Amino acid sequence: MEIVTSVRDMKARSRAWRKQGLSVGLVPTMGFLHPGHGSLVERSVLENSRTVVSIFVNPTQFGPGEDLESYPRDRDRDAAYMKSLCANVLFMPEPGEMYPPGFATYVEAPELGLRLCGASRPGHFRGVCTVVLKLLNAASPDRAYFGLKDAQQFFILRRMARDLDLDTSMVPCETVREEDGLAMSSRNSYLTPEERAVAPLLRKGLLAAEAYFRDGGREALKACAVVSETLAAEPRFSLDYAEAVAACDLRPVSRVSSETLLACAARLGRARLIDNIIFDPSGPSRKGRGGRPCW
Amino acid sequence: MEIVTSVRDMKARSRAWRKQGLSVGLVPTMGFLHPGHGSLVERSVLENSRTVVSIFVNPTQFGPGEDLESYPRDRDRDAAYMKSLCANVLFMPEPGEMYPPGFATYVEAPELGLRLCGASRPGHFRGVCTVVLKLLNAASPDRAYFGLKDAQQFFILRRMARDLDLDTSMVPCETVREEDGLAMSSRNSYLTPEERAVAPLLRKGLLAAEAYFRDGGREALKACAVVSETLAAEPRFSLDYAEAVAACDLRPVSRVSSETLLACAARLGRARLIDNIIFDPSGPSRKGRGGRPCW
Repeated sequence: MEIVTSVRDMKARSRAWRKQGLSVGLVPTMGFLHPGHGSLVERSVLENSRTVVSIFVNPTQFGPGEDLESYPRDRDRDAAYMKSLCANVLFMPEPGEMYPPGFATYVEAPELGLRLCGASRPGHFRGVCTVVLKLLNAASPDRAYFGLKDAQQFFILRRMARDLDLDTSMVPCETVREEDGLAMSSRNSYLTPEERAVAPLLRKGLLAAEAYFRDGGREALKACAVVSETLAAEPRFSLDYAEAVAACDLRPVSRVSSETLLACAARLGRARLIDNIIFDPSGPSRKGRGGRPCW
Repeated sequence: MEIVTSVRDMKARSRAWRKQGLSVGLVPTMGFLHPGHGSLVERSVLENSRTVVSIFVNPTQFGPGEDLESYPRDRDRDAAYMKSLCANVLFMPEPGEMYPPGFATYVEAPELGLRLCGASRPGHFRGVCTVVLKLLNAASPDRAYFGLKDAQQFFILRRMARDLDLDTSMVPCETVREEDGLAMSSRNSYLTPEERAVAPLLRKGLLAAEAYFRDGGREALKACAVVSETLAAEPRFSLDYAEAVAACDLRPVSRVSSETLLACAARLGRARLIDNIIFDPSGPSRKGRGGRPCW
């Protein structure tokens, strides 16, 4: 595995691979890698001749007062982990390489970015879209892999890829969870042992909402109330939002009649945790169809 | 010459050329082509194995009340002209092909877009950046050619290409002029014969400002006043702006100490004409260096 730190070198690798007719997969990350990232890398290694993992804690997607400085980092452990999964290149640019003096062009995130996390983190998806477009341009991948814990992020990036006529296929991947159901996240490291013990409540609330849907319930507000009521049992949790939106365009729905994303975010101690379920009233659960989303 | 109307087909052509190791030049236009465009195409044909000319009257760069509907069009004449210059592909997508239902991602133009034409045409450069990024992604050119009549546009697009790590080299090309000095523009067709007769006054004002600089004058405001005073002789002209900015970053300058863009826009009848000079106090005129800009 090679470590690359400049866009120019990354482009050179990618160009050479292309000339040899090799397919390329990209897994964009902010590092402090866990098995959730690992599952994306494994899939990329399986589906492409070459896999690039990028590690970049992207300053433009953090707002004032957010955890840019304290975001957990462990480059050596990340590198060893990625090497063990047979990644070919670890692309780790410094902020000044991605945003040199005079940098001034941003991608205006699709309107989908104004809801859910976009409402509580203004500018977040603008930063995400901008950096992912730059990473895609640096690595020229055939496929890029994203975890569905960040479902809204995936929908927005796929919209961007279609709108800007990119050549990369954006691949959504199932959320990987701890044994007790908590979605894996680098930010879980912020939790104290006591907070960690109650953290799976977020997932429990979402599963309760899913059960409500499966039992025939179709009221979006009611499903969201199920989540907030579940969290209310634990005063350390502070719900940021729970909202049901159409999976196709992230518009809010009142009654669930087509595939629906129920997403939520909640603060627990220093961490802001997010998770979601995707429910399709017209068919079997996504897992039942082999984990392939239908949108 | 082949006429291509879908992004998918354009990408297929471009991919096939790349596989054969052929270089590609792109000349993005809004059609109603004149020898100014022709000079860009000739240069592209000279410098690349294949040349794509795009014709697309881009709705997202027109503001309310601007001339989107009335923008002059003549597809047949354009096609014959481009064929005569040995362009290989004329890419003429319909608006619905470039902006299908649900389109929602835009490029936020660099701050350079807030001055000069950006001030009088809000959103204009956002539309320009978005469409040019899409055209670049469709044609994957090694080089893209732009006329310096639209100097601000060129600076903004070059900034975009650098910021987003695009592989295309953005090539500035000298403004082509009518015999009386008027910069060629599709919008010149809006002028009545009487207006056309006085139109070169804009160029005359700029040349007078250039003479002021060449004689040692360095006050930006004074140079701009030279332009407005020249235009004041003709009541049919209404100056939109005349502003001196640094060529490197388009920031306003008060004293001219490095390469400076003096740009202006003025209304004349139904037309809004733009033109500019670029003056370098430290060296010979750009033309003297073979027409190669130093920025």
